[in-house]
Amino acid sequence: MPEPLRGAGVSPGAGAGPVRTIAGAVPEPPAGSRHGGDAGAEAGAALAALEAVAADLEDRGARAAEAGNPDGRDVLNAQAMMARDPGLADGVRARVGEGTAAARAVYEAFGVYREMLAGAGEYMAARVSDLDDVRDRAVARLLGLPMPGVPESGEPFVLVARDLAPADTAVLDPARVVAFVTEEGGPTSHTAILARTMGVPAVVALPGATALADGTRVLVDGSAGTVRVDPSDEEVAAARAADAARASVLEGPAGPGATADGHPVPLLANIGGPKDVEAALAHGAEGVGLYRTEFLFLDRSDPPSDAEQEEAYRSVLEAFPGGRVVVRTLDAGADKPLAFLPAPGEEPNPALGERGLRMMRRHPDVLSAQLGALARAAAGLDADLQVMAPMVTDADEAAFFAGACREAGIASPGVMIEVPAAALRARDLAPEVRFFSIGTNDLAQYACAADRQVGGLAHLQDPWRPAVLDLVAPAAAAGIPCGVCGEAAGDPALACVLVGLGVTSLSMSAPSLPLVRAALARHTLDQCRRAAVAARAARTPGQAREAARGHLPHLADLGL
Amino acid sequence: MPEPLRGAGVSPGAGAGPVRTIAGAVPEPPAGSRHGGDAGAEAGAALAALEAVAADLEDRGARAAEAGNPDGRDVLNAQAMMARDPGLADGVRARVGEGTAAARAVYEAFGVYREMLAGAGEYMAARVSDLDDVRDRAVARLLGLPMPGVPESGEPFVLVARDLAPADTAVLDPARVVAFVTEEGGPTSHTAILARTMGVPAVVALPGATALADGTRVLVDGSAGTVRVDPSDEEVAAARAADAARASVLEGPAGPGATADGHPVPLLANIGGPKDVEAALAHGAEGVGLYRTEFLFLDRSDPPSDAEQEEAYRSVLEAFPGGRVVVRTLDAGADKPLAFLPAPGEEPNPALGERGLRMMRRHPDVLSAQLGALARAAAGLDADLQVMAPMVTDADEAAFFAGACREAGIASPGVMIEVPAAALRARDLAPEVRFFSIGTNDLAQYACAADRQVGGLAHLQDPWRPAVLDLVAPAAAAGIPCGVCGEAAGDPALACVLVGLGVTSLSMSAPSLPLVRAALARHTLDQCRRAAVAARAARTPGQAREAARGHLPHLADLGL
Repeated sequence: MPEPLRGAGVSPGAGAGPVRTIAGAVPEPPAGSRHGGDAGAEAGAALAALEAVAADLEDRGARAAEAGNPDGRDVLNAQAMMARDPGLADGVRARVGEGTAAARAVYEAFGVYREMLAGAGEYMAARVSDLDDVRDRAVARLLGLPMPGVPESGEPFVLVARDLAPADTAVLDPARVVAFVTEEGGPTSHTAILARTMGVPAVVALPGATALADGTRVLVDGSAGTVRVDPSDEEVAAARAADAARASVLEGPAGPGATADGHPVPLLANIGGPKDVEAALAHGAEGVGLYRTEFLFLDRSDPPSDAEQEEAYRSVLEAFPGGRVVVRTLDAGADKPLAFLPAPGEEPNPALGERGLRMMRRHPDVLSAQLGALARAAAGLDADLQVMAPMVTDADEAAFFAGACREAGIASPGVMIEVPAAALRARDLAPEVRFFSIGTNDLAQYACAADRQVGGLAHLQDPWRPAVLDLVAPAAAAGIPCGVCGEAAGDPALACVLVGLGVTSLSMSAPSLPLVRAALARHTLDQCRRAAVAARAARTPGQAREAARGHLPHLADLGL
Repeated sequence: MPEPLRGAGVSPGAGAGPVRTIAGAVPEPPAGSRHGGDAGAEAGAALAALEAVAADLEDRGARAAEAGNPDGRDVLNAQAMMARDPGLADGVRARVGEGTAAARAVYEAFGVYREMLAGAGEYMAARVSDLDDVRDRAVARLLGLPMPGVPESGEPFVLVARDLAPADTAVLDPARVVAFVTEEGGPTSHTAILARTMGVPAVVALPGATALADGTRVLVDGSAGTVRVDPSDEEVAAARAADAARASVLEGPAGPGATADGHPVPLLANIGGPKDVEAALAHGAEGVGLYRTEFLFLDRSDPPSDAEQEEAYRSVLEAFPGGRVVVRTLDAGADKPLAFLPAPGEEPNPALGERGLRMMRRHPDVLSAQLGALARAAAGLDADLQVMAPMVTDADEAAFFAGACREAGIASPGVMIEVPAAALRARDLAPEVRFFSIGTNDLAQYACAADRQVGGLAHLQDPWRPAVLDLVAPAAAAGIPCGVCGEAAGDPALACVLVGLGVTSLSMSAPSLPLVRAALARHTLDQCRRAAVAARAARTPGQAREAARGHLPHLADLGL
């Protein structure tokens, strides 16, 4: 049996079907293209194309919302606004007025915005592909080219692309598309996030994906991150049976997380704001292990008021009476700039720059306002408020943060462990705070010096890498409670390994909770420990995964 | 005695004198500034100002060369070329033609280039400050403002600035300037490199440096990285005595590196090309521990020919008969782009991107051409050629590189240890190669997630950080020879600690060799080991330094 192709599985489940590759890229209209001379008519055509694109995007947005995908609608409406931007229209008119053909004028006018976005740090740069999609749609209309997007197909198919634009994925019918496979993208790309929202299996960062011929039958395993070409009927049947086993778990009862022998492991949800509380409760979260607070601060010209912050925190605390809510203080920086704070200057590598607590030490007023609002929000409520700082490097920084929490009246300060130095010296940091929370995504990024945003390096930042487990171990053994809130916590096998390393709670995106709960419930703490020892003794991520599974026999019962 | 101010010492020695702060920044000419109407005269004035700036820079360049600073001349001549760029002149003329005032037109025309440079990766972005300096000189001329640069002073002084432009430092008279202190910049900034070339003590990345009042007397210790305000005569005398002790070592005899009890520690030089061999030999290098080969590949449109490479390698190998020469294969990537290879795509964090061996795996022809040229260069010579790959993450990559070396007929493949994962799993990598060489600069950058290029984070990437020592230890204990070729190797106290951790050779910039040789010669291997244990038991870089010194009593005899 030949080895399957390997990428990064970003949305679980199995799907088999013929490949349909998304229509090729819209070409750049040649520089120097001129129109016939009637600038008025040419500009009219250009603006009509932009308006038609905007209307189509809005229409797709409405359909996405009807299909239960409000996030998809928001992205599409934002794209429609780009198409209708008055500055863009001015740029098109000016170029057409100088004789440039409509398609080229549109292309160039978008270029100005593209450059600004691309230069504005990670957060904005991620919007470049949305902008390019709007541009390509308008250019395709003007040149009479096929519209980029999902091909038509009479039967369900596996959608293959270099990368998927939100406009493509948002209106897809899950009954028609059995899986996504992309050559680029990472676990936090739009494609990945929307695929998970739609419940469609997805594998990204698969080298050579677009070389798969249209019509080739493939089996996509979004849990394992593999794509098998020309699978046998038995392979497809086995993958479907595993899927069914997983699905049956999702219908089982929730309850507190624990190993088979009763060792409790609280299972918590990662949330990005009060809007995510409902999903967390629906999947049986015992609390919140990572409450990201950036939504309160980004994309606005003034800091949020104390009352606004207090309200946003209280609404989450109220949802978990008796449970814990772990709030991460503002994690801004050069890659997520705040309009109301001076930028720390141009940073050649924002991920290695003045992020998180590093930035808050320069703006202690912002930190103390947030801590004050948190303390007031928790007053009189039954939830256990814990507050942690992102991007902490050493004991001095941990002590600084704990001091700021004490001043605000917060009794449970903690720190994220995501910098390798902090993990290695966890025993130095432990006396300063009450708990750790390991961010495996950033920890792997730094330990392997491999950017999370670069799909081609995905193999280097696999959380199964023994070196990453070597960094989890000292943090989990430092004598204070130590959770994990990175993607690793949502992988059922890896969750068992983390518990075996001494991790005391796991926090993940809500849909991952049931399978992790089931995997823990079927294995003893001792099995988890043996799995952890075996994984650390391995040399590669793949060997670590296999070695751990050797000690976790009941994963197979769950279709894992 | 109050604590001194702490920055990063980047050029050793002690200097005391009154502070002179460099003239403040040239302000941005207000947007919308219009000229009186005579566009021809206005454009003439603008171009004359640019030409005057160019001529002045060339003149400074010639003076720098006379003062024995050819690197300074090259930088200044490159700046003169920027001032005379025809595209820039066109941009100025076009803006003046539209009514913009000369100073504003110059400012805006530079802006186009500035944006291109700033967006073109680390290597080009470092040139932005050179470009800004040219712009500010032209704007100052047009607005009748004082020219940015070194103030006049009747007595020797300590030059304080936010950052120093090459044009400022290149013509400084070491007899007139007793030390440099800057608020920004790092160990690899222009200021640091030129200060070392001039032999002037320098402390960079000192917070609040520019707040020191003009005329304040300060004592700058470029070895310790400290600035003491209002020092007593005794403190100045002690610093000068230490300086003299260090200077006397430089006049002592060279010889092979070894501890006091005869444990050999070969002392090698880091070089950037054949031009650096002379300095290496003059300082008694026993060989080359890091031969950077980028100079052969950057800033050219074709790859170097096989013959050109062979010649560049042979000329270095011939200089060290019987000695070792460790060559690092091409370390290019998004931050040091190669004109003749397709870029790996936009990378939001080039330092975490497709660098070094990662890039060579995509271009095996470039790697095999280099390895072939190395093998041919060494044929028939007496030097011990060793070849190592940069940016290696795991055993698979080490095995790939060793295989490529074997195919080329190179018997001693090795890998750089600069990625934390590689350090942690050194025992997995060791069976694949013959030696390790630890790059402490990058290792500290990744371990602490703190960009080497950002002065404000210098405190986070101190190689004395116990977490960094924790990563050196497993690499040094993995059972194969393990050198260090980062900046840490040139710090005499840290060099002893590294030897105590099990490091088997040290490679550094040539001027650092004598003091390191002297420090090792005065301490036993056992003292080094005890210093290493004490440093790792500490919690902060400062405590580690102090704890190690407690076991290295003879550093004081050397003025260290």
